[in-house]
Amino acid sequence: MNLEKINELRQWMAQKQIDLAYISDPGHIAYFSGYESEPHERVLALFLPLEQDPFLFTPALEVEDAQNSSWSYDVRGYLDSEDPWVLIGQEIRTRYPQLKTIGIEKNALTVDRFDALSQQMTGTVQYADLTPAIQRLQLIKTTKEKDQLIAAGKWADVAFEIGFRSIKEGVTEQAIIAEIEYQLKKQGVSQMSFDTLVLAGTNAASPHGTPGSTTIQPNELVLFDLGVVWDGYCSDATRTVAYHKPTEFQEKIYQITLEAQLAAQEAVRPGITAAELDQIARNVIESYGYDEYFNHRLGHGIGTTVHEYPSLVAGNDLVIEEGMCFSLEPGIYIPDQVGVRIEDCVYVTSNGCVPFTTTPKELLVVE
Amino acid sequence: MNLEKINELRQWMAQKQIDLAYISDPGHIAYFSGYESEPHERVLALFLPLEQDPFLFTPALEVEDAQNSSWSYDVRGYLDSEDPWVLIGQEIRTRYPQLKTIGIEKNALTVDRFDALSQQMTGTVQYADLTPAIQRLQLIKTTKEKDQLIAAGKWADVAFEIGFRSIKEGVTEQAIIAEIEYQLKKQGVSQMSFDTLVLAGTNAASPHGTPGSTTIQPNELVLFDLGVVWDGYCSDATRTVAYHKPTEFQEKIYQITLEAQLAAQEAVRPGITAAELDQIARNVIESYGYDEYFNHRLGHGIGTTVHEYPSLVAGNDLVIEEGMCFSLEPGIYIPDQVGVRIEDCVYVTSNGCVPFTTTPKELLVVE
Repeated sequence: MNLEKINELRQWMAQKQIDLAYISDPGHIAYFSGYESEPHERVLALFLPLEQDPFLFTPALEVEDAQNSSWSYDVRGYLDSEDPWVLIGQEIRTRYPQLKTIGIEKNALTVDRFDALSQQMTGTVQYADLTPAIQRLQLIKTTKEKDQLIAAGKWADVAFEIGFRSIKEGVTEQAIIAEIEYQLKKQGVSQMSFDTLVLAGTNAASPHGTPGSTTIQPNELVLFDLGVVWDGYCSDATRTVAYHKPTEFQEKIYQITLEAQLAAQEAVRPGITAAELDQIARNVIESYGYDEYFNHRLGHGIGTTVHEYPSLVAGNDLVIEEGMCFSLEPGIYIPDQVGVRIEDCVYVTSNGCVPFTTTPKELLVVE
Repeated sequence: MNLEKINELRQWMAQKQIDLAYISDPGHIAYFSGYESEPHERVLALFLPLEQDPFLFTPALEVEDAQNSSWSYDVRGYLDSEDPWVLIGQEIRTRYPQLKTIGIEKNALTVDRFDALSQQMTGTVQYADLTPAIQRLQLIKTTKEKDQLIAAGKWADVAFEIGFRSIKEGVTEQAIIAEIEYQLKKQGVSQMSFDTLVLAGTNAASPHGTPGSTTIQPNELVLFDLGVVWDGYCSDATRTVAYHKPTEFQEKIYQITLEAQLAAQEAVRPGITAAELDQIARNVIESYGYDEYFNHRLGHGIGTTVHEYPSLVAGNDLVIEEGMCFSLEPGIYIPDQVGVRIEDCVYVTSNGCVPFTTTPKELLVVE
């Protein structure tokens, strides 16, 4: 349970005159309550009032786990045969009879669940959006959170090492992924933060390609994009390496991408904007004439989820502050020819930034 | 691309006078379009009008993949630096100027995205819910879908075999999971349908327990709940086995669970209701006095997602029909003592059902 963040949210609620926060995103429920769960289609909710005691609302089969987590308030369970919304309505009316405004997560709550909640409330209850407050809360990481992200980042370095060692002629992308995840799981990593990507040769020219039975071939590049969840925090990093000597063109595209990545990383400091960082990387790639092949934003925030606020993208004038954590991941993808992406997630210090992953970024040639 | 299902949806839209379906769930987009993607927080959408040509709306970095999928209509990409909702508004107004009613997936669309769409449309556009129609479409599987589910089920049997072979004294739950997933991935399975569960001893007494560093000990039960995604379709199956001779009590709880599972499986046929099936399994467990420890529904539908419609639960009067596919998974969880669950997913035939997994259900004692 994260009382510090619960109190921060309550301060914001007081300013906005929100009496009750309904947290619906399972990741955010874990963030505040300490209880982690993937409820699938079942309803899992955290109700956090401004002044009274909060409660967790969980499927009956999760009550025991929730009580055994670090959450120290009430857990209300419901059976699959009960209508969760009727129970939620009763609980809210009984516990918080003076309720006037409920804060909801507009970016996580589905329309049908919002309708179901609204039907339980009287017509005079108002709704407000919690999204900006939660994004803001998660934006600046505490020292403890930074340490958790560093720990997750170290596992990404371990994963790269396993992956690079697994590169051999004729091995499939999928077999390398299997090896990476096997070795990590044996060492105690229970979850990857997203489906591990290993893309060989021209497959890497599709930035979101799907790994499969393509095999590693000499004089081609291999792209690794991976991360783990460790102690509730995510890592996310990308390296592109060569198997045997790369062609001059592959090497050129690699060096441009690296120059862009390093330029952005060196520019990070409090006071610069998200859009400016994106532009710095884009300018490098544009100066070589490849900007049309860098068709995504520079990066995204990282924390308890692998993609969170802020977005490092043109038009986002968010001013970077100390404690923010985000990815810097320029890429150049030339269809049917070559694909390179280089990514580190970093945390912002008082005068720069420090990456969570330390695997070298100079082009590694695996022999 | 699944034209048969697109046409079924269009027939329903015609009846309900819905001019345009906005499909937002990535699994449903894959189901209709053939294009599979996990867009994270980016917007991915399928717009399917009643009569004109549909189009896919994807992040720019996915356009090529979408065009290379089995989808044969337009793909409209957008850059991270563009506002997707402004573009969606323009596309819809240009392509479908006569639009009166948009169908949305209320159980998949978030409130903020619905707000963003609404702001782009004129005030006269009405909204209807597509959820019941899509649930209904997915409810009755085609012969091809059944074959895909059978193929996914076979991989669950392979997984059990690997898992059972990995049981040894002192091995952790997590190490067994690593072994199962490694062997499957090496054989070409790229994705599990959910986080594999291996729960040893009393850990299995929590139906949604989290596997970790608990080790296998003699005279204890070990619960395996697992599934894969194969060719877009999911499997989901559970077996509980004993490591060395189980205690009399463990054996008793096992046999009651098995009796309940088999009773439900034998009762499946067109004409019975979802609630009746749930009750049949529950009655068996109740007759031994353990019904309070069976604290979840009997089962859930399965298809392109691991949990879908229908829910086999008290109160659901849905009449079972040939072609439906769902899990039958009674369990008994007595805290700090023992946990057993046995699960097969089945498809309904004209006079009964056939399971997708064939790993025997008599209590296996691993020596």
